[in-house]
Amino acid sequence: MIVDCALYRDGKRAEGGTHWRELRAKADRDGDFVWIGMHEPSTTEVHEVAEVFGLHSLAVEDAVKAHQRPKLERFEDSVFLVLKTLWYVDEEDAVETGEIAIFVGDDFVVTVRHGRGNELHSAREELETSRRVLSHGPSGVLYAVIDRVVDEYLDVVDELIVDVDEIEASVFSAERTHDSARIYVLKRELAEVRRAVLPLREPLVRLAGGDEPTVTDQAAPFFRDVADHLARAAETVDSLDALLSTAFDAYLAQISVQQNDDMRKISAGAALVVVPTLIAGIYGMNFRHMPELDWTFGYPFALGLMAAVAAGLWVLFKKSGWL
Amino acid sequence: MIVDCALYRDGKRAEGGTHWRELRAKADRDGDFVWIGMHEPSTTEVHEVAEVFGLHSLAVEDAVKAHQRPKLERFEDSVFLVLKTLWYVDEEDAVETGEIAIFVGDDFVVTVRHGRGNELHSAREELETSRRVLSHGPSGVLYAVIDRVVDEYLDVVDELIVDVDEIEASVFSAERTHDSARIYVLKRELAEVRRAVLPLREPLVRLAGGDEPTVTDQAAPFFRDVADHLARAAETVDSLDALLSTAFDAYLAQISVQQNDDMRKISAGAALVVVPTLIAGIYGMNFRHMPELDWTFGYPFALGLMAAVAAGLWVLFKKSGWL
Amino acid sequence: MIVDCALYRDGKRAEGGTHWRELRAKADRDGDFVWIGMHEPSTTEVHEVAEVFGLHSLAVEDAVKAHQRPKLERFEDSVFLVLKTLWYVDEEDAVETGEIAIFVGDDFVVTVRHGRGNELHSAREELETSRRVLSHGPSGVLYAVIDRVVDEYLDVVDELIVDVDEIEASVFSAERTHDSARIYVLKRELAEVRRAVLPLREPLVRLAGGDEPTVTDQAAPFFRDVADHLARAAETVDSLDALLSTAFDAYLAQISVQQNDDMRKISAGAALVVVPTLIAGIYGMNFRHMPELDWTFGYPFALGLMAAVAAGLWVLFKKSGWL
Amino acid sequence: MIVDCALYRDGKRAEGGTHWRELRAKADRDGDFVWIGMHEPSTTEVHEVAEVFGLHSLAVEDAVKAHQRPKLERFEDSVFLVLKTLWYVDEEDAVETGEIAIFVGDDFVVTVRHGRGNELHSAREELETSRRVLSHGPSGVLYAVIDRVVDEYLDVVDELIVDVDEIEASVFSAERTHDSARIYVLKRELAEVRRAVLPLREPLVRLAGGDEPTVTDQAAPFFRDVADHLARAAETVDSLDALLSTAFDAYLAQISVQQNDDMRKISAGAALVVVPTLIAGIYGMNFRHMPELDWTFGYPFALGLMAAVAAGLWVLFKKSGWL
Amino acid sequence: MIVDCALYRDGKRAEGGTHWRELRAKADRDGDFVWIGMHEPSTTEVHEVAEVFGLHSLAVEDAVKAHQRPKLERFEDSVFLVLKTLWYVDEEDAVETGEIAIFVGDDFVVTVRHGRGNELHSAREELETSRRVLSHGPSGVLYAVIDRVVDEYLDVVDELIVDVDEIEASVFSAERTHDSARIYVLKRELAEVRRAVLPLREPLVRLAGGDEPTVTDQAAPFFRDVADHLARAAETVDSLDALLSTAFDAYLAQISVQQNDDMRKISAGAALVVVPTLIAGIYGMNFRHMPELDWTFGYPFALGLMAAVAAGLWVLFKKSGWL
Repeated sequence: MIVDCALYRDGKRAEGGTHWRELRAKADRDGDFVWIGMHEPSTTEVHEVAEVFGLHSLAVEDAVKAHQRPKLERFEDSVFLVLKTLWYVDEEDAVETGEIAIFVGDDFVVTVRHGRGNELHSAREELETSRRVLSHGPSGVLYAVIDRVVDEYLDVVDELIVDVDEIEASVFSAERTHDSARIYVLKRELAEVRRAVLPLREPLVRLAGGDEPTVTDQAAPFFRDVADHLARAAETVDSLDALLSTAFDAYLAQISVQQNDDMRKISAGAALVVVPTLIAGIYGMNFRHMPELDWTFGYPFALGLMAAVAAGLWVLFKKSGWL
Repeated sequence: MIVDCALYRDGKRAEGGTHWRELRAKADRDGDFVWIGMHEPSTTEVHEVAEVFGLHSLAVEDAVKAHQRPKLERFEDSVFLVLKTLWYVDEEDAVETGEIAIFVGDDFVVTVRHGRGNELHSAREELETSRRVLSHGPSGVLYAVIDRVVDEYLDVVDELIVDVDEIEASVFSAERTHDSARIYVLKRELAEVRRAVLPLREPLVRLAGGDEPTVTDQAAPFFRDVADHLARAAETVDSLDALLSTAFDAYLAQISVQQNDDMRKISAGAALVVVPTLIAGIYGMNFRHMPELDWTFGYPFALGLMAAVAAGLWVLFKKSGWL
Repeated sequence: MIVDCALYRDGKRAEGGTHWRELRAKADRDGDFVWIGMHEPSTTEVHEVAEVFGLHSLAVEDAVKAHQRPKLERFEDSVFLVLKTLWYVDEEDAVETGEIAIFVGDDFVVTVRHGRGNELHSAREELETSRRVLSHGPSGVLYAVIDRVVDEYLDVVDELIVDVDEIEASVFSAERTHDSARIYVLKRELAEVRRAVLPLREPLVRLAGGDEPTVTDQAAPFFRDVADHLARAAETVDSLDALLSTAFDAYLAQISVQQNDDMRKISAGAALVVVPTLIAGIYGMNFRHMPELDWTFGYPFALGLMAAVAAGLWVLFKKSGWL
Repeated sequence: MIVDCALYRDGKRAEGGTHWRELRAKADRDGDFVWIGMHEPSTTEVHEVAEVFGLHSLAVEDAVKAHQRPKLERFEDSVFLVLKTLWYVDEEDAVETGEIAIFVGDDFVVTVRHGRGNELHSAREELETSRRVLSHGPSGVLYAVIDRVVDEYLDVVDELIVDVDEIEASVFSAERTHDSARIYVLKRELAEVRRAVLPLREPLVRLAGGDEPTVTDQAAPFFRDVADHLARAAETVDSLDALLSTAFDAYLAQISVQQNDDMRKISAGAALVVVPTLIAGIYGMNFRHMPELDWTFGYPFALGLMAAVAAGLWVLFKKSGWL
Repeated sequence: MIVDCALYRDGKRAEGGTHWRELRAKADRDGDFVWIGMHEPSTTEVHEVAEVFGLHSLAVEDAVKAHQRPKLERFEDSVFLVLKTLWYVDEEDAVETGEIAIFVGDDFVVTVRHGRGNELHSAREELETSRRVLSHGPSGVLYAVIDRVVDEYLDVVDELIVDVDEIEASVFSAERTHDSARIYVLKRELAEVRRAVLPLREPLVRLAGGDEPTVTDQAAPFFRDVADHLARAAETVDSLDALLSTAFDAYLAQISVQQNDDMRKISAGAALVVVPTLIAGIYGMNFRHMPELDWTFGYPFALGLMAAVAAGLWVLFKKSGWL
C-alpha cells in the first residue's frame, strides 16, 4: 500500500498532486525529489514503482520479502538500504522487529516498511519542519529515517537496561527466585537486538565516510553522528549481555549457597528430634537397676531432659547460624 | 557418472547432441558454453573432461576426492569452487553434508557432485527457464548453483531454529528432562553447518567484488546477494550456538534447583516419620510413674498425638513450600 | 554556566578582560587563543558561543546533552572531542562518571563539563604554570585535559585493583563469605570503566598519528604518551575482569567444598547419636535371657558403652578429617 | 648425521657421487640442485654445510636447536622454514612432536630433522618418482616436504576425532564414567596440534602468494592446496576443542543428575527402613491397654504390617522413579 | 646510579676514561658509541644525561618512573624502548617484574634499569665478547638487551609449565586437594607475564621490519628472531592459561564426584546402623506371643541377626562400589 507520497522542492513539501507518477513528472527542477512511502506493498505496486525509477530487480525482491539482513547495496545510480526496526512491547517485556527498505536516488526516495512498529509518518512530518535536513535532498531523508530507527534502538536498549536491573535485583534478593528462564529470554532479546544493530554498522561507516555517490559531503557528519549512536547501542548490548552472564553465574552460586543453608537447617532440625529419641531409647532399656525409672518424677524428668537438650541444641545451632 | 550435459547459446539450451565432446565441438560461437554435470564420477571420467577443458590437476584431484574445504581457486583461465551442501534429515533430526565442485571457464561449466542431497537437476531446469541468469553465461550458472546451495543452508538453519526452540521448551518445562545429550548433538550439527558456511564467505566476497576474471561486472550484485544470505546463515548459526550455551547453563541451574527441591521434600517426608518415632519412643520408656500408660484410651491418644503432629508438620511444610 | 574564561598569549594567561566576547576580540595576534570553560551550561549559553566560534550544530547538541560516547569528530576548521570522566567514590566503593566535551579550533578552546568530578579548574591552573605545554596552543590544552582525565582513569583503576584484592582475600579466606554480589558489582564497574576507556583509544590514535589538522607535529609524542597510559588502563581493566571471573569460579568451588565438608560433619555428628540409639534399642529388647539386664551395673555399663562408642567414633572422624 | 644426499638434474636423481661437497661441485648446470638430508646433526656437520651454502647463522642455530616455532624466514638468496611434525602414538593415545628445518636456495635444499617421526626418506623416494614436482626444483622439494607433514597433521586430527567420539560415547553412556581426566588430556593434545598448525599458516600464505623469490609462479597453486589442507586441520582442531568443552559441560550435568538420582534412591531406601521402625516403636510402647499386644497373631500381624508398608512404599517409589 | 659506562669502537670496548662526559667527548669517530648503564637513577642523574644526548623529556619521565607499559617510541634522532623484565622466585613460586628503559641514538645507548632482576652487567660482558653483534653499533646493543630479556621470559614460562604440571597432577590425584587458590594464583602470574609479553610484540615487529631509522638492515633478522621467541612465549602463556581453565573445570568435576562418593559412603554407613536398629525395635515390641523372646539363645540370635544383616549390607555395598 502506498501510504504517503510527496514532491519536495527547495527544502519543503510542494503543494498539489497526490499520485506518484504525477509527482514524478513534476520533479523537473534541480534538487527536486519525490518521496514515496509504502507499507507492506503488493509485488505489483513495488514493480510499477521499480520500473519507473529503474530500481534493481534484486533489491526490489529484497524489499518485498521481509526478513532481510540490514545492508547497504550500491547500484549505478541509486543506493538501497535495508534496516531492521525494533520496538519494545511493554505488556510482554519483549522486543519485536520490523523492517524498512529504502531506495535513494538523485531525485527520489522510496521507503518500504514491514511490520507494525516504527511508522514513518511522524518521521516525515518532523522532517518537513526541518529545512536544514530536507535541503540535503534524498540523503537528508535517508538520514532522517536511519536516525529515527537508531533512536528507537536506543529506546529499546534503555528498556532492556531496566529489565537487566530487575533481574539483578531478583538474583541478589534474599528470597528464592527462579531467574534462569528470565535471563535466557533476555539474552534472546539481546541477540535479536544485536542482529539488527551489528550488520548496520558497516553501511553507516560507508555512508559516514562519504563514499556513497548519493550522499553529499555535508551530510557525512550527520551519518557519523548516527553511526555513533549505533555504536553506543551496540556497546550497551554487549555489556548487558556480559552482565547477564555474570548474573547467571551469581544465580547459580545463590542456588548452591541456598542448598547449603537448607542442608544445615535440615540437619539441625533433625538433631532436635534424634537426640531426644536417643534419650527415650535409653529410658526404654530393660535393665533391672535403673534408679531413674523408680523416681516419682522420673517421667517428667526425662521429658524435661529431652526438652532441655533440644533447647540447648537450638541455641547452639542458632548461634552458629545453622538454624 | 555424467548426469547431464548441454550446450547453451543465447541464454537457452541448444537442441541436439548429447555427448560432451560433441557439444564442446559445437560451442564455437561467442557466448556459447557447455555445462557438464557429474555425480560421483570415476577418476577416468573426470580426467578425460579435465584434459579437454585444461583443468588444473590439483583442482581435479580435489573434485574427485570429496571432503574438501569450501574454497575458490583461480587458475589462468578458469575458476574452481568447492562448496559443501547441507540437508536436514527429518527422521534423524540430523544435518547431512555433501559436496559440489565447479569448474568455470569462459565457455564451459563442469559440476561434480558428491553425496545424496542437493541434486542439481532441478537447479538446471529452473535456470533454463530464466534467460536473465543464463545470459550471464558460465557466471550465471555459477551464481545459480551457489544460490541454490545457500538457500538450502537457510532451510537447514530454519530446521535448527525449530530444534533449538524444542530444547528451550524442554529445558524450561516443569518436568524433569535430560537435555544435555540433545544440546550436545545440536551443537555438533551447528559446528557442521559452520564448517560449510564460514569458509565460503571469503570466496563469495571475492566473487561479489568482481575480482575474478570469469565473473562479469553485471553478475557482481547477484553474488553480493548470495553473500548476504550466507552472512544471514552464519549469524543465525552463531546466535543459535550462543543460545544453546545459555540453555545449557539454564539446564544446569534447573538440575540444581530440582535437587534442592528434592532434598527439602525428602527432609519434610522424613520429619513425618521421625517425630512420631520419638513419641513412640517416649511411651516406650519404662518409668514406673507415667500416667498416660494407665489411661484407658492412652494408646489411641498416643496414636492420635502422632497423627496430629504429623498432620501439623504436613501443613507447615506445605505452607513453606517444602512439600 | 561559564566557569572560567581567559585569553592565552605567548604561552601564558593574558591579563585583563573577563567576558569571552571581549577576550575573543582581543585574540588578534598569531598564536593567541581563548579558552572558555563551561559547566553544565544552558542551551542558550552554548549556542551563543557556538555561533561566534562557528561550532557545528551536531557537536553542540552532543555537548549540551550528556551521555555521549567518547569520540573525536573533525569538522572543517575545528575538532570536537567527547570524553567520559571517571572518579571513585570511596564511601560507596563505586565508580561514577561525568563527561567533558571539548571544541578545539586554531584560536579557541571550549570545554563543556558535565557531572561533579574532574573539575578542570586545577588542570587549568597547572597548565598555566607550564609554558611548554601552553606554547602548543589549543592542542596543548587538549592534551592537558585528556592527560588529566586519563590520569584519573589510572587512579580509578588503582582503586579497583584494591577492590579485586579484597575480593580475592575474601574468596580464599577460611570463613564462609558471600562474594557473588560483590564480584558482580565490581564487574559492573569494570564495564563502566571499559565504556569510558575503549572508545577513546581510536581518537587518541588519530591525535597521536598527527592526522588531525589542529594538532601540531610536536604535540604528537604527548598524545602518544597519553594513548599509552590509556592502553595501560585498558589492559589492567581487562586483566582485572579476567581475574574476577577466575575468582568467581574459585568462589563456586569454595561453596562446593564447604558443602562437602558440611555434609561430612553432619554425617559424623549423626553417627554419634545413631549408634548409641542402636545400643539403647538392643537393651530395650524384651528377651527373657539377657544377662546384662540383671547385672547390678548393667545400666551404667550400657551408658558407658554408648559413651565409649561415641568417643571412638569421634576420634575416628577427627582423624579422617570428617569432624 | 647426514642421512641422504643427492644431485637432481632434469627432474630426476643424478647418478654417481655421494659426498655432498662432490655433488655440490657437479651441480653446475642450470636447474641442477643438491638435496642434503640430515637427522639430528652435530653442530659441526651443520656448520660445514652452512658455510658452503652461505646459510645465515641465526637460521643455522635454530636448525640445530630443536623446539623452535614454525616460521618462514627469508634471507637474501635463500628461504628458511621450520615445521613441527606430529604423529599419533596408538599405544599411548598421545600426540608426539618432532621438527623439520629446511633451507631452500636456488640450487640446493638442506633438510634438518629432529625427533623420531616423519622420516623424509620415503618422501624423497616418492618425490623421485614424480618428475612433475621435481621439475619445480627446490620449490618442488619444499612443497613435497610440507605436503607430507601437513598430510600427517590430517592423520593425527583424524585420530583425535576418534578419541573425541569415544569420550562422547563415554559421557553419554548410562554408566558412571570418569571422563574429566581424559577430556583434559585430549584438550592438551589439541593445544599441542594447534601450536604446530597455527603458526604455519602465515608462512604458507606467503609461499602461496608467490611473494617468496625462490618459489616459482607455477608452484603457487601447490602451496595454496597445502594451505587449504592446513586450514582444514586448524578448523577441525578448533571445532573438536569446542565440542570437548561442550562434552565437559555435559559431563558435569551428568554428575549432577546422577547425584540427584542417588539422593532419591537413598531416601527411598531409607524410607523402607524408617517406617517399619516407627511401627516397631509403636508396638514397643508400654500402654496397659493395647489390644494388638494380646492377640495370638499380634506379632506376625506387626511383622506383616511392616512388610506391607515397606512393599507399598517400594511400589510407590518405583512408580515415581525414585527407586 | 650509573652502574657502568664505556665507549665502543670497532666492535670492542675502548680502553681509558670512565666518566660518561669524558667518553662522550672521545666518541668522535664514525661508528663510535657510548653505552651508559644506570640502575634506578635519581632524576638529576637522568636529566644530566638527557640534556647532553638530547633525549625527549616525556621519554625521560617514563624512564625515571617505573611501571610503564612496554613500548617503542621513535623521536627525531633516537629510539626509546621500555621493556618489562621478569624473573621467577623459586622460594615463593612467584613471578616478579622489573623494568628496563633504553635510549638508542646513532652514537649512544642509555639503559635505565628498575628492580632487582635482569642485571645487564653480564649481558654487557657477553656482548663485549661478540664482535659480530657489537659491530652493528647501538642496534646491536638494543638487540642484545632485548634478546636477554626475552630469553628470561622463556625461562619464566618454563617454570610456569612446571607449575601447571604440578597443578594438573594434584587435580587428577586420588587425594582430596584444594587447588582453586593455586590455580587462581597461577592465572594471576600468567596475566603478569602476558602484560610484559603482549605489548612488546608490536615494537619488535617494527624493529624487525627495519622501519626504525636507528636499526640497520643487517640487524633486522636478529630482531625477527627475538620476535619469534617472544611469539613462542606468548603462545605458551595462552595455551597454559587455557589448560588451567580446563584444569579448573576438572577440579570442579572432581569435587562433585567426591561429594557423590561421600554421599553414597555415608548412606551405606547409615544403613549398617539403621537396619539393626529396626531389628532391635522389633524385639523391643511388647507382644505377648513372640516365640523368639523365650528362646534360651534368643538374645545371641538377635545380635547375630543384626551382625549378619549388617555384614550382608556391607558386602552388597562393597560390591556396588558404595563403600
